[in-house]
Order: sequence, then C-alpha cells, then structure tokens
Amino acid sequence: MNKVAVAKGDGIGPEIMEAVLKIFNAANVPLEYEYVDMGKWVFDKGYSNGMTPAAQQTIESLGILFKGPMETPKGKGVKSVNVTARKTWNTYANKRVFQTLHGVDTVFSKAGIPIDITVVRENIEDTYGGIEHMLTHDVALSRRFITQPGSMQVIKYAFEMAKKKGTRRITCGHKANIMKLTDGLFLQTFYDVAKDYPELKADDIIVDDLCMKLVTRPDQFDVVVLTNLQGDIVSDLCAGLVGGLGFAPSANIGDHISIFEAVHGTAPDIMGKNIANPTALLLSGLALLRHIGLMESAATIENALLYTLEQGVHTGDFGDKAVQSLNTTEFSEAIIANF
Amino acid sequence: MNKVAVAKGDGIGPEIMEAVLKIFNAANVPLEYEYVDMGKWVFDKGYSNGMTPAAQQTIESLGILFKGPMETPKGKGVKSVNVTARKTWNTYANKRVFQTLHGVDTVFSKAGIPIDITVVRENIEDTYGGIEHMLTHDVALSRRFITQPGSMQVIKYAFEMAKKKGTRRITCGHKANIMKLTDGLFLQTFYDVAKDYPELKADDIIVDDLCMKLVTRPDQFDVVVLTNLQGDIVSDLCAGLVGGLGFAPSANIGDHISIFEAVHGTAPDIMGKNIANPTALLLSGLALLRHIGLMESAATIENALLYTLEQGVHTGDFGDKAVQSLNTTEFSEAIIANF
Ligand SMILES: CC(C)[C@H](C(=O)O)[C@@H](O)C(=O)O
Ligand SMILES: CC(C)[C@H](C(=O)O)[C@@H](O)C(=O)O
Repeated sequence: MNKVAVAKGDGIGPEIMEAVLKIFNAANVPLEYEYVDMGKWVFDKGYSNGMTPAAQQTIESLGILFKGPMETPKGKGVKSVNVTARKTWNTYANKRVFQTLHGVDTVFSKAGIPIDITVVRENIEDTYGGIEHMLTHDVALSRRFITQPGSMQVIKYAFEMAKKKGTRRITCGHKANIMKLTDGLFLQTFYDVAKDYPELKADDIIVDDLCMKLVTRPDQFDVVVLTNLQGDIVSDLCAGLVGGLGFAPSANIGDHISIFEAVHGTAPDIMGKNIANPTALLLSGLALLRHIGLMESAATIENALLYTLEQGVHTGDFGDKAVQSLNTTEFSEAIIANF
Repeated sequence: MNKVAVAKGDGIGPEIMEAVLKIFNAANVPLEYEYVDMGKWVFDKGYSNGMTPAAQQTIESLGILFKGPMETPKGKGVKSVNVTARKTWNTYANKRVFQTLHGVDTVFSKAGIPIDITVVRENIEDTYGGIEHMLTHDVALSRRFITQPGSMQVIKYAFEMAKKKGTRRITCGHKANIMKLTDGLFLQTFYDVAKDYPELKADDIIVDDLCMKLVTRPDQFDVVVLTNLQGDIVSDLCAGLVGGLGFAPSANIGDHISIFEAVHGTAPDIMGKNIANPTALLLSGLALLRHIGLMESAATIENALLYTLEQGVHTGDFGDKAVQSLNTTEFSEAIIANF
C-alpha cells in the first residue's frame, strides 16, 4: 500500500486534517499515513527551519507530503516553513485549480460567469530567494533572480499539464515591459517551450492587465503560468473568484517530492472549536490522490463533496448563505453520507 | 489664467484629449493649454526618452502635465516614457480613485457591493528602477530598492489625503512576510507615520490576501498604500472592480510637478475612428482641476458625466449594456448637454 507523510499543521490544522483523513478512510482510500513533525511547535522546540531531521527523512523516503496550514514564528531571520519545504525539495511548480463550486455563491457565480482557471506558479526563484540586505540604515535591497532552467522546468510542467487536461489556452502572465531581463527571460522561455505544443494556444499578458481581466471576464482564461510572487498574488485573486482560500487546493510538484497543502491560514482564533472548513485541505488531498493514480477514490470523494456543497450544506464560515450550517465533524460526515 | 502642459499621446490619445478639452472649454474651465511633444512619435524622431527638450522645459515651468496614453517602442534598452516621466519629475505618489459609477454595470454593482477605494502607489522605487543584468546567459538578476525617504514621502501623502478625505481606514499592502527587509522597511515607515494620525484606523495586509479580499469583499477597503509593482497590480485589479481601465483616473503627484493621465492603452486598432471612450482621461482631468483648486468646474463636469453614464449613455466599448451607444464626439456632447 502507498504511504504518504502527513504533517497536521498548526492552529486548525490538526482538526481539518482529521476530518479529511476520516473521509479518506470512509472511502477506503488505499493509503497509509506516517505523521511527521513540522510547524510552529517544531520551531518552538528549537528546530530553526520548523521541521525535525526525522520528518525530513520520512518525507524524502516517501516522496509525498500532505500538510495542514502552518505558522512561522515572526522574526527577521526566520524563514517561512512553507517556503523552506518548497525549496528544500525543489517543488518547482505550484499548481492551484480554481473552479466554480455549485452552492458556493460568489458575485461571479451569481452573474453566471463560470470559472475554471489553473494557475501554475514558479515556486522557488524570484524574491522568494530571500536575498536581502540593508545598504544603509534607510536603503533596503532585495535581489530577484530568474533563471532559464528554473523557468523551463515549471513552464514545461504547465504545458504538459495543459495538454493532458485538453486545455485550449495557456497564458504567461508577466511584467516584462518593466523587468525586461528577468521577466523577459521567463517570457522567452515560455515561447521557446510553446513551440513544442502547437496544439495549444499560447499567449501572454502583462500581469496588471491580467488582474483587471480576471475580475471582469475571468472565463476567458484556462491555464496561467507566472513567476513566483506574481503567481502568489494571482493565485489568491483567483481563490477569491471561487469563494476564498477555504475552497482552493494547492499542489507543489517536484520531480522527486511533491507537497499537497491547504494554503489558508491557521486561524488560531477558532482553533480547537471543531468549526473550521476542511474543504481546501480536502481538495488538496484529492489532488494528491490523483497525483499518485488513485483516480477512482478521488472521483468518489469529489462527487460527494460537490454534491454536499451544492445542497447548501456548509461549515459555519460560509455564513448565511448555507441551508445547513455544520461543524467540522458533521460536515465530513455529511460528505461521507453522500458517497 | 492657469496654464498646463498637454501631451495628446499616441493611438486614440489625440481624439480622447480633444473630447476632454472640448468638455473643459464648454464648462468655461479657466485654463490655457500648451501642447508638448511626447510619445512614440517622438521616440521615432530620435529622442531616446520619448520627449523633446522643449517639452521637458515647458512641463518643468508649468508644473502640471495632462497626458493621453502613450506607447513606448519595444526593445531591451528602451524605457517606458510613462515611467521616465514619473521618475524625471519625482512624482512619488500615484493616486487612483476607484468608485462605483452608476450605469457602469459590473458583477459587483449587480451584487449591490459599492466600491470606493483609493489606491496610493509608490511611483519611483522598487524594480521600476530597471536595474537588471544577466549574470550568465541563463541567469537574470533584478535589484529591488526600497528606501525609507522614498517610502516616507508617499506614505505621508497617503495619510494627509486620507485625513482630508475623512477616510476611516488606511491599509498598507505588502509582502513583508517574504521580503522582510524591503517590504519590512515600507511597512515600518507606514506605522511610523501612522503615529501622527491617531484619528485614522491604520492597518496592514499581505498583498495576496488583499487581492483575495478585494474580489470577495472590496467594500471593506478605503485607502490602500503599496510599493510600486504591487500597487501597479492592485490598481488594475481595482480598475476591474469598477468596469475597467476605461473608467479609472490616475494622478502622479510630486512636490513640484504632477502628471494626470489615462493609464489605459493607446488602442491602435480603433485609432482615428472616433469611437474611443474618453471617460478615464476625463476623470484624470477632473483630478487635475481639483489639484489646482478648480473645484467648481470639476463638480459641474463630474455631475454631468455621472448623470450621462447613469442614463445608460455610453461609448461603443461598453457594448450591449448601453441604452444609447455614441461615438467619442457625441458622447462628449451628451456630457456637455447635461451641464
Ligand atoms: C505563507 C506564504 C509564505 C505563502 C507564499 O507567499 O507563498 C502563501 O501566501 C502561499 O501562497 O502559499
Ligand atoms: C505602462 C506601464 C509601464 C505602467 C506601469 O507599470 O506603471 C502601467 O501599467 C500603469 O499602471 O501606469
């Protein structure tokens, strides 16, 4: 049986992870789980990168990490554990799928504008390198690196994925009119790769214009590929289009190790109350199942989830629009009842 | 009589500028105009920064530039004429006001979500410095500078403006969780300035989260202040919220010189057809009038514009939602008829 590493995360992490694994077990997903130590509480124990060496070893040997949201302690020298994980294992492509969910009302769904956008974000380079210093006490400098190999690997991934998915259009978002060399290199690499995929309509758009169009006519976009920070911003924007981070999955894909995670916060204010929404983590878990070939399990659970949401059955965070407002446990049981 | 420099711009620039100045004249706006040479055609004449020395002199002596959209010729060494203008005259604050316009339907107006957001964007620093080079043939590096004095001047401007406007909330958007020194400096400066404005609710938000919230609950934001590139992206997003760049004004404010411009493209495909929408340039012109104290003229024209749009009278770009679809000349005449 396949085995994956599981890091429950901080705040609401453990309770939503429990809900998701309960759903997996009820669906007889053929997976075993090995829990690993990562997150704020691991920093607090004195591990400066937020994970134990044992956790690292397990993740490296299993190749798949399923993780809840994590907090990084504040402080100038401390690096985000989420970013460290992505970088340590070279998960160079961050893939987030944003789709209209029936029953999750947004201004766009109400206006009859369907959304089905996959954002592929470069996950390692850019200012996420964290190479910064103070030149004088009042001048700060950050170095932004973009490389051809780094761009190539994520762009190739995006094209392969778009082709498999049968996508019509693949769009490179960038700011090459201002960052002519760095974003220019990313854009050039995009069109170099595009030559090998004549069946796809490849085009590009300046990132500010992209954001304007995403809030006016989002239905014109299919797959969008961007550098790291611009991809971060556009991903969250797209999450908003379908109802927020509570409904948005995230997969960090590398050649050897991949990480599937909920990218919303740890919501310490509602921690332990059993009211958090497990949907984003569940959707990330479904991406995990598909990644390792468990298509049927994924389909069963996804159908049950979509049907549940469509009935207006939600956790409390979805507020007054819900027909029925359930706690985390009840919500996961409602999904299971719909298998 | 006050005199301002006018650069008509490229593409549709001359025809929308003509429409706006016709409206100004009909409203007896006490202004004289001195035309200056800037834009693509000036690059083409051999001026490497897109403006003639005479244009520069005029702008510097008059202190106010009213400009149409401009194109910059492509090429790695060529810098955007828009950015050069902002930098040359240290117009450090880019102010864009985004307000629901009755008659300009968007998914948000249809959902009954009113929008009144002012984005103040730092206009000089950041990767807009254009300091980039290739380290090797496949590694590009861009340097991102953020300075305390540069941050201070725009943040002070934002607070002063918010105070005058009677705003409740002022929010700093940033990515200081990743760019801890550069965005950290901007954020620190924000809170330093905030101390002098206890009457304003000052808070901050990570830029990706901001973008998510802007597409779900934009009505919670009043004034948002950001570094240059993040501000560029957020500005366009907000333009989308109120109907697109065709309805979004822009003011570049400096201590000595200020520039009021339409930030949409030059639309070469519809150039010379007299069908372009002059609204964004007109709104920028109204910001100009208010800047130099011509409040009454601004109010007269604004009321007529709002009334016209509200009646469903639009230029053709607004498509099927218009009750009456007019060309540029007719649209400006409709506004004048509503004085
Ligand atoms: C938590 C933060 C470091 C992270 C990022 O910026 O990548 C988050 O916003 C995300 O999108 O996963
Ligand atoms: C044209 C371009 C250089 C400019 C920018 O990036 O600032 C534009 O997007 C704007 O917002 O005015």
